[in-house]
Amino acid sequence: MNTPQHVKIIDVGPRDGLQNEKQPVPASIKVELVHRLQDAGLKEIEVTSFVSPKWVPQMGDNAEVMAGVQRRAGVRYSVLTPNMKGYEAAVLSQPDEIVVFGAASEAFSQKNINCSIEESIERFRPVAAAAKAAGIAVRGAISCAVGCPYEGEIAPERVALVAKLMHDIGVEHVGVADTIGVGTPLKVQRALEATLQHYAVDQVSGHFHDTYGMALANTLASLEMGIWHFDTSVAGLGGCPYAKGATGNVATEDVVYMLHGMGIETGIDLDKLIDAGKFISDFLGRKPHSRAANALLTQRLG
Amino acid sequence: MNTPQHVKIIDVGPRDGLQNEKQPVPASIKVELVHRLQDAGLKEIEVTSFVSPKWVPQMGDNAEVMAGVQRRAGVRYSVLTPNMKGYEAAVLSQPDEIVVFGAASEAFSQKNINCSIEESIERFRPVAAAAKAAGIAVRGAISCAVGCPYEGEIAPERVALVAKLMHDIGVEHVGVADTIGVGTPLKVQRALEATLQHYAVDQVSGHFHDTYGMALANTLASLEMGIWHFDTSVAGLGGCPYAKGATGNVATEDVVYMLHGMGIETGIDLDKLIDAGKFISDFLGRKPHSRAANALLTQRLG
Repeated sequence: MNTPQHVKIIDVGPRDGLQNEKQPVPASIKVELVHRLQDAGLKEIEVTSFVSPKWVPQMGDNAEVMAGVQRRAGVRYSVLTPNMKGYEAAVLSQPDEIVVFGAASEAFSQKNINCSIEESIERFRPVAAAAKAAGIAVRGAISCAVGCPYEGEIAPERVALVAKLMHDIGVEHVGVADTIGVGTPLKVQRALEATLQHYAVDQVSGHFHDTYGMALANTLASLEMGIWHFDTSVAGLGGCPYAKGATGNVATEDVVYMLHGMGIETGIDLDKLIDAGKFISDFLGRKPHSRAANALLTQRLG
Repeated sequence: MNTPQHVKIIDVGPRDGLQNEKQPVPASIKVELVHRLQDAGLKEIEVTSFVSPKWVPQMGDNAEVMAGVQRRAGVRYSVLTPNMKGYEAAVLSQPDEIVVFGAASEAFSQKNINCSIEESIERFRPVAAAAKAAGIAVRGAISCAVGCPYEGEIAPERVALVAKLMHDIGVEHVGVADTIGVGTPLKVQRALEATLQHYAVDQVSGHFHDTYGMALANTLASLEMGIWHFDTSVAGLGGCPYAKGATGNVATEDVVYMLHGMGIETGIDLDKLIDAGKFISDFLGRKPHSRAANALLTQRLG
């Protein structure tokens, strides 16, 4: 099996995760989570989003969280910015990277961001341009890249189209997201192949949800294509509020356990990562949504 | 990706699963579970074991269960037989196949079956011979084929040795079992390669536990080697009573969801399979240990 020797994990827990948690999480807890993640060796953390607090009250403390993080050299701190208004607020917090969010499903785009796919990407054009002019990296998310709660299966051609549109406006790296977790290995590979028509393998990450338990198999299928960036969420925080039953970003702990077991380096200390996941899970009053973390936490009890 | 077009699932839930459940399950419920599994299209079901009820009281109703099953043509009903005494009791129930259980870990063998690996296999020699003489198929399980709760990592050479010993006494098919679920794709492939030194690819099944969430990735890694038999457990019933925290046979539902998503035939009706898993989970008073089943059950609610 020919897989990369090193993988970079982008932990999206503080943003993509906590955004979808019902219980409000104080800024101080979010900051502590980011600190614990960087202590565990994470080199990229999606910290918060600059979306209207009317729509996403969970991220209303975005500037406070960004200001609270004691940044570490070599770590990239990213924030979601849906439009110029969000970007202008975000830039005051000096993120290293901004993230724009598109969908490969027309119906999902309409319901989630109230505009067509092409309109949504056009809206990102000035955001991407402003970020680049300011020396800020630009990442894009292609959500519903395998399946959509409204449209069902998504054709790889749609993924390729979104990838092309994102590339055209200057997005430098895209995450191929199986937002509702229905993807299986071959379908995921087709979505990735479509994206690779417009991006190099170093510019694409896999973003999988474990709703149906498929995320690690999909991660393996991606590794076999040379993909070496993955968006994951500590303790499996989060999910998708627009898709019923679609809880479950894949847990960072599960992905790291698999990678280390395969001899693939991540630079992450799994024990510290598990501590970070336990910290936020304890706050939320539940066990981590990670089988590896729960198995290893049980072992610690002896 | 080069994977088989058809997979045969061996559902071990009624035996390997229910044997490890704390709550006693009446024979009538076990029989109903077997009926539901064959209705769902399962072609091989591990029904019960003929072990001393002193050691495994959960299977004390073995003859009653076997007598209660209304057998269907084309379905293979297997039972676990640890020794001649068990075999002699089992044969009265007319199983299609008997299963003998060895380990690739010396310490596990000692603690689990109170003898060395070689002694355990010698003990199976007359069992295998008697079964073959009676026209009954003989399957073997190689437990702890990747890791052991007492010894840690298991060398592939140990797996090869057990495979050779099993082959020598006439075992026709072996399951390579990651009993404690610590395996990751490359380690699993090495254990399978070791087994394939003595068995053809058609004579080997993968038996994975989802304790660390790795089972589907390991299944995918096995498929890529041409392995097309898998031991799975409806609703993720069971685990390993000798290994702390090691619950979790992989759920049949999760494996079937992945296979169907990859266009691989199983002959199984996933909806009926989910019903079977819900039936036994309802009896046990919990949700199925299957992410795919829970996601699809949530969807049914609309």
